[in-house]
Amino acid sequence: MPSRIAPPTLRGGPVQPSTGALQALGPDEVSLTGGFWREKQELNSEVILGHCERWMERIGWIGNFDRAALGTLGTDHSGIEFVDSEVYKLLEALAWELGRKPDDALESRYRALVARVEAAQEPDGYLHTSFGRAGQPRRYSNLEWGHELYCFGHLIQAAVARLRSGCDDELVQVARQLADHVYTEFGPDGRDAVCGHPEIEVALVEFSRATGDARYLELAGILVERRGRGLLKADRFGAEYFLDDLPVRDATVLRGHAVRALYLASGALDVAVETGDAALAGAIATQWENTVARRTYITGGVGSHHLDEAFGEDYELPPDRAYAETCAGIASVMLSWRLLLQTGDSQYADLIERTLLNNILASPREDGRAFYYTNTLHQRVDGTVPEEDEISVRAQSSLRAPWFEVSCCPTNIARTLASVNLYFVTKTGTGVQLHQYGDYDVSTRLETGSMSLGVQTGYPFDGAVSVLIREAPDAAASVSFRIPAWAVGRAVVHVNGIPVPGSGATITVSRAFRAGDEMTLHLPMTPRLTRPHPSIDAVRGTVAVERGPLVMCLESTDLPDGRALAGILLDDGADLRETARGVRAHLVPAEIPKPDWPYSDGAWSGTGDTGFDVELIPYCAWANRGPSTMRVWLPVALPGRGTARA
Amino acid sequence: MPSRIAPPTLRGGPVQPSTGALQALGPDEVSLTGGFWREKQELNSEVILGHCERWMERIGWIGNFDRAALGTLGTDHSGIEFVDSEVYKLLEALAWELGRKPDDALESRYRALVARVEAAQEPDGYLHTSFGRAGQPRRYSNLEWGHELYCFGHLIQAAVARLRSGCDDELVQVARQLADHVYTEFGPDGRDAVCGHPEIEVALVEFSRATGDARYLELAGILVERRGRGLLKADRFGAEYFLDDLPVRDATVLRGHAVRALYLASGALDVAVETGDAALAGAIATQWENTVARRTYITGGVGSHHLDEAFGEDYELPPDRAYAETCAGIASVMLSWRLLLQTGDSQYADLIERTLLNNILASPREDGRAFYYTNTLHQRVDGTVPEEDEISVRAQSSLRAPWFEVSCCPTNIARTLASVNLYFVTKTGTGVQLHQYGDYDVSTRLETGSMSLGVQTGYPFDGAVSVLIREAPDAAASVSFRIPAWAVGRAVVHVNGIPVPGSGATITVSRAFRAGDEMTLHLPMTPRLTRPHPSIDAVRGTVAVERGPLVMCLESTDLPDGRALAGILLDDGADLRETARGVRAHLVPAEIPKPDWPYSDGAWSGTGDTGFDVELIPYCAWANRGPSTMRVWLPVALPGRGTARA
Repeated sequence: MPSRIAPPTLRGGPVQPSTGALQALGPDEVSLTGGFWREKQELNSEVILGHCERWMERIGWIGNFDRAALGTLGTDHSGIEFVDSEVYKLLEALAWELGRKPDDALESRYRALVARVEAAQEPDGYLHTSFGRAGQPRRYSNLEWGHELYCFGHLIQAAVARLRSGCDDELVQVARQLADHVYTEFGPDGRDAVCGHPEIEVALVEFSRATGDARYLELAGILVERRGRGLLKADRFGAEYFLDDLPVRDATVLRGHAVRALYLASGALDVAVETGDAALAGAIATQWENTVARRTYITGGVGSHHLDEAFGEDYELPPDRAYAETCAGIASVMLSWRLLLQTGDSQYADLIERTLLNNILASPREDGRAFYYTNTLHQRVDGTVPEEDEISVRAQSSLRAPWFEVSCCPTNIARTLASVNLYFVTKTGTGVQLHQYGDYDVSTRLETGSMSLGVQTGYPFDGAVSVLIREAPDAAASVSFRIPAWAVGRAVVHVNGIPVPGSGATITVSRAFRAGDEMTLHLPMTPRLTRPHPSIDAVRGTVAVERGPLVMCLESTDLPDGRALAGILLDDGADLRETARGVRAHLVPAEIPKPDWPYSDGAWSGTGDTGFDVELIPYCAWANRGPSTMRVWLPVALPGRGTARA
Repeated sequence: MPSRIAPPTLRGGPVQPSTGALQALGPDEVSLTGGFWREKQELNSEVILGHCERWMERIGWIGNFDRAALGTLGTDHSGIEFVDSEVYKLLEALAWELGRKPDDALESRYRALVARVEAAQEPDGYLHTSFGRAGQPRRYSNLEWGHELYCFGHLIQAAVARLRSGCDDELVQVARQLADHVYTEFGPDGRDAVCGHPEIEVALVEFSRATGDARYLELAGILVERRGRGLLKADRFGAEYFLDDLPVRDATVLRGHAVRALYLASGALDVAVETGDAALAGAIATQWENTVARRTYITGGVGSHHLDEAFGEDYELPPDRAYAETCAGIASVMLSWRLLLQTGDSQYADLIERTLLNNILASPREDGRAFYYTNTLHQRVDGTVPEEDEISVRAQSSLRAPWFEVSCCPTNIARTLASVNLYFVTKTGTGVQLHQYGDYDVSTRLETGSMSLGVQTGYPFDGAVSVLIREAPDAAASVSFRIPAWAVGRAVVHVNGIPVPGSGATITVSRAFRAGDEMTLHLPMTPRLTRPHPSIDAVRGTVAVERGPLVMCLESTDLPDGRALAGILLDDGADLRETARGVRAHLVPAEIPKPDWPYSDGAWSGTGDTGFDVELIPYCAWANRGPSTMRVWLPVALPGRGTARA
């Protein structure tokens, strides 16, 4: 059966609210044409998608579906209980990929995989390879840790990606039957229960938007409101871990398991937007604000607890024990994107940029064949290199691993990179808003007519961005430039060589554009020293270096022979100099005493030499040159002396 | 059957090596007579022992043995798989308690409990309530996580405590049969395997010492040498967690799971001492030195990873995420005590004192009915108060909990406090060595005759210690005083009012003592500022305050109304003043900015007022006055300004 082409109104990006300040564009409306981001997206197309598929074939995670269909699956299920979701995230990635760039061979791979999933669906719509068979736990017998609805959510999100790409196919049918089953089981007449891992909430709202079926939105709303009433058994990590400690609308900050918290907040905001629940939307905005102000690493990463993959307390942001899980960064982008669409406030796009460049992109290795699950800001020891053909546990090495026992991050990277172009631009009835900078073409319809433009830049390394209008409505239209917080007041926009007034977080050009009009944006890329809030105890007395949107780091690989990272101080009185992609800084080595006991009632002396210059590199690029140590936050030297301050 | 009285040569303390610089005394030779430590030991006698027993009755951990004996135990085993060990640690505590102070009622309770354990022993000597029955895993089917030999070790240690108290009873018989079973199963002709959690090694050497059976020592040696050869499946946390990454004699620092590491090192040192293996003993001493120099909190606590309860890397010592498990502190004392007996070097007694006072004693609440499992050095939020009748998970509150799902710490506290007097004094052929100060009597036989003395002091709050000789050999004898590292060069000893020369880490009085001779020791208790090694990133720019052997802390309870801990700086230019049990310090409040984003390219300003004086209290006494926040490491104020340095 060929895929049916859905009505054009279904097309769109990863989030398509029915109302909001800004509208998302679809995969046919924004395309990366070159440069930094196209390289990343091509790495995904050419390497990461195949890497994920091969691993999941090899270790039987896809095979689980075949055995489920044959009736031979039981206690010998491959992988932990939520590996179905990795297959679904790959399907979502493939759907975005196909929506962006139709390809027959890829379409065949996608359809073959869908067919294997479809074959495992049970007559009542239920679809999970870990539950309900002989030797397996009963369906819904372990809502805390079973991840059943979580997996369903990812399947539904893959179906949404397919619908948004204009195709209503077998996967969408599977998702409908599954969503209907969940509505029966957990809806208004079903059990009073929620899943330990939020995810289905966001998927159901999106599926409701994409299909027009209001029951899915209703169910999402019910699940959001049930949370925080102690329906889950709070064991090892307490109710907070599951976000079951407080009703969503009563919380003032994100807490507990970071990915769970951010998926739930995204789903709750989706519900709020669709139902006009201003109180709920306001609660989510407050949670975002307080989380960004007090529980977020400079890289945009979140989560400072390894034990429970959780947010820490306010200002508890240890760099060496940063968990900053890749999936939590992706979930943070999901939430910020929704808030951006709802409000149009560029602060959300700022955090998206920071998180994409400095947390999410740190995960895949340059060759796309290994990933970080956690993204530390301070690597103290070289660690060991994981085998290329072995499944790794998390966070055991300073190097990225090809696959994990819990391998949520690689497939999450895959679906994010396959759709990353869709986070760059939005539109209103009369204009487009450029939120992220790269080489890309936009072609969309405004209320007043078609608008088409091309963006070119060496960003994120260079601060010059040029925009060429190819087609514009006859009437006045607008093009808005996001000015990142670090550039506000120092960014300049020209139209056809004439400066545009504006010094805020957005500079908007409004005029009757003509094909051939050129605009330029100049962002100041001068390296800057960044000091942490005094309540972030773990990095007191240190500074970070940023360059444009990129957080820099010092990697031991770049130190002169014989120097080690321990004891290196930054001379913050010396100039920072921009290099092609990094920053040259002056470092001062301090002699590290080696006492029997590391606490003293005397001063610790240091007798370093005059120091040396070293290039700091973008944090996201570290650990691509063999085992190394690294730090983002550098202790500051007293002027002229090789001793740390205070 | 009445307990048989063992030959007097069996009597002794928790460790009784056949050779070494110093000899331990037995429970009949040292007794606490009053003051600080007697209060703690009486709290244990009167509250903690009963608390542990009642909890383990109530939740079926003792009942597991009854059901095992009846043959009705299966999949419905109460508690996790190593709860037998808690019953054994309670038995060990009771044995020390009875050895110290015979008591008919307590003896009956002890015997009743032994009888219930004994009834569960199987004909071949095996004794474990979690394995081997219908519905349970097979014996030795999960050596990584099953903790079978670990539990056996604790049973054997309880038997050792009984033997050292002069009783060869039913528990000793049970232990013999169990140890013989282990020798058969894991000895030279048994399987080539080790237990995931070391413990039996130390127990077997001690049992060999106490019974004279050389096979147990042989088996301990075999188990120590097997380790580090990859016999355990390294899953979640890697081989290092199990100390299976390197042969014991090849390691240079303690690593992996802290309690496992320290129990193993203790057992390995026992093997080395009994077999004359100087290389192995030297390796353990090196591991101790490097661990103390680079991986130990100022409280003596160890372990900075919550995830795997493990040591961190060198200098990775975050105060807010300090794990510093109570059991790891106890294990550290076990190792240091063995090194002290072997070498006579007072640095080991220094660490014992620090760890007992500032890590282990922080665990029990003042009323003995709740405990810390982990011992943080920085509590950021008040947390919630655990219910008095609920089992807690670890580290969920700023307050101590009555019992835990993994409840290793309360019973470990119980056995440690029941025998803590035995860590105070040692002897040689011609003298006694006073390692710890308190109110206690010593009565022992030297080679030259009987020696009896009494010690009195207000220590650890007061630095004056007086010693009265009650009986002494006719020949010259010696009394040695340990001078803690912080007092070296400033401590003074007098004999009958006449100063004794000496300025090192030990001051020894050698003379022909007469009954009525008086000695005094004066230790300088002036509060002192302690600065962390510059490589301990997490506490850069802070100081701690110490007073004699006690680490101080600032608890929010002591702040003036309306002040919060966040933003409080210590004025390290102002005098610290001694109070009865604490230190008055001058604090300066800094205004804490509340930005949207906690990283800035400008300076963070603070505009605090002139500050106020507050009493810092001993860290071990914190959290006894309701929910609070607390910190040991205090950020330092710039002179005259309410801003933090650097």
